[in-house]
Amino acid sequence: MQNKSQLTVVKIGGKVLNNPEALNQLLQDFSSITGPKVIVHGGGSDATEMAKILGIEATLVNGRRITDAAMLDIVVMTYAGLLNKNIVAKLSALGNSVIGLTGADGNSILATKRVHPEIDFGFVGDVQQVNAPFIHNLLQQNCIPVFCAITHNENGQLLNTNADTIASEIAIALTKYYQVKLFYCFEKLGVLEDVENEETVIQNLNAQLYADLKQKNAIHSGMIPKLDNCFYALKNEVNEIQIGLPKALNNSNVKRTCIRL
Amino acid sequence: MQNKSQLTVVKIGGKVLNNPEALNQLLQDFSSITGPKVIVHGGGSDATEMAKILGIEATLVNGRRITDAAMLDIVVMTYAGLLNKNIVAKLSALGNSVIGLTGADGNSILATKRVHPEIDFGFVGDVQQVNAPFIHNLLQQNCIPVFCAITHNENGQLLNTNADTIASEIAIALTKYYQVKLFYCFEKLGVLEDVENEETVIQNLNAQLYADLKQKNAIHSGMIPKLDNCFYALKNEVNEIQIGLPKALNNSNVKRTCIRL
Repeated sequence: MQNKSQLTVVKIGGKVLNNPEALNQLLQDFSSITGPKVIVHGGGSDATEMAKILGIEATLVNGRRITDAAMLDIVVMTYAGLLNKNIVAKLSALGNSVIGLTGADGNSILATKRVHPEIDFGFVGDVQQVNAPFIHNLLQQNCIPVFCAITHNENGQLLNTNADTIASEIAIALTKYYQVKLFYCFEKLGVLEDVENEETVIQNLNAQLYADLKQKNAIHSGMIPKLDNCFYALKNEVNEIQIGLPKALNNSNVKRTCIRL
Repeated sequence: MQNKSQLTVVKIGGKVLNNPEALNQLLQDFSSITGPKVIVHGGGSDATEMAKILGIEATLVNGRRITDAAMLDIVVMTYAGLLNKNIVAKLSALGNSVIGLTGADGNSILATKRVHPEIDFGFVGDVQQVNAPFIHNLLQQNCIPVFCAITHNENGQLLNTNADTIASEIAIALTKYYQVKLFYCFEKLGVLEDVENEETVIQNLNAQLYADLKQKNAIHSGMIPKLDNCFYALKNEVNEIQIGLPKALNNSNVKRTCIRL
């Protein structure tokens, strides 16, 4: 089989997005990564703040945001508008060709509105299909796709979708063309055994250790969906996954969590 | 010289955008136009409404909106987020491949912050260069670019830019590759001699008649920048310009104003 070139997919978490200095540094570091690369960003707190200012209640059920029509508008404005386009402009200023996308653009991520027997999540979408040839085509033209956490269904409805899931689904879809490295940037050194103590970062996490730690309730509940996503991606041909601080992106001396099966 | 194929550039005005039924119909009509095509949309009243809700004053000087930092955020959210992505999703649902863009995406429209001896317009940009090869490349891939009225400068700053100007500058830049037809959709039949009376639509307007009507103060002041744009585009190789109702787009029986030099 022909050797595939390496693709780097970077997910940027909400707290990094809300800190302009941290974001600028991250975009510089990202910009210096060689080879094809993709950004996926969330942006939860901006939407929550905007909703508060507009007097719209953000409803959470089991820690999941309910996306009614008013909240969808806010999420589309902040994620696809404010955050996405500022990232695009900043990356462009660093000399890159960049396109900011929702899943509706280029029909890049098709989703279905979530159906749940008890909870109406509103306009929340679960990823159904990633248009890998479209993204591959952009990458071949030395373009950096920057995805926000908005998808669409076949009927013209925009849908709010989990950014971690989008990152892993894009990573998986692109394994058809690339060796894919997925990096989840957030505000901590990595997966911590004690969430209060950065010294306890788990530098190597495999499926067995993850199962053991989960059984001991030693994984912070907020990390579980993220880590489930990681192992799902690794089982689906993604080569390498790391979780850590933005500065770990291109500094191998910075500790982080490396995840393997 | 080889015959160039025809490109249609459609500018959608604010009042059409604010009427969901009119917009849906327009997108259906637009979708049925054969050949390569581009949309440019404004969206003034959505931004003004959002600013009002957020308690931000919209300042106008000589009828021009002053774009301070807070207003720029609102404009980016509503134009590049809410309006642009809903148009993209709706056109996708009609079976098109569509990409929603600001001038920062693909470095497609570079602008400079407006400098004026007396008025500080804030984050307002004047178009400096359209990246015609980038847009042509999208069109060759049967993709419809949908531009909102946001550009950027070389330093990562997003800028608020007049949508009519963006439409004419894109039309001009693409004459390198295409015979370009530019259609300004708005809420009236065309250019009216009496703004209160739709029966007075001027069906054919040329430079001489325009000069005469301007001298008689018979052109509504709001139309003058739009028409100046039109004649500027015609002088720069754009083949054909029409102004009228959305339904004139693909129904030749609907009256409209056809503009020539």
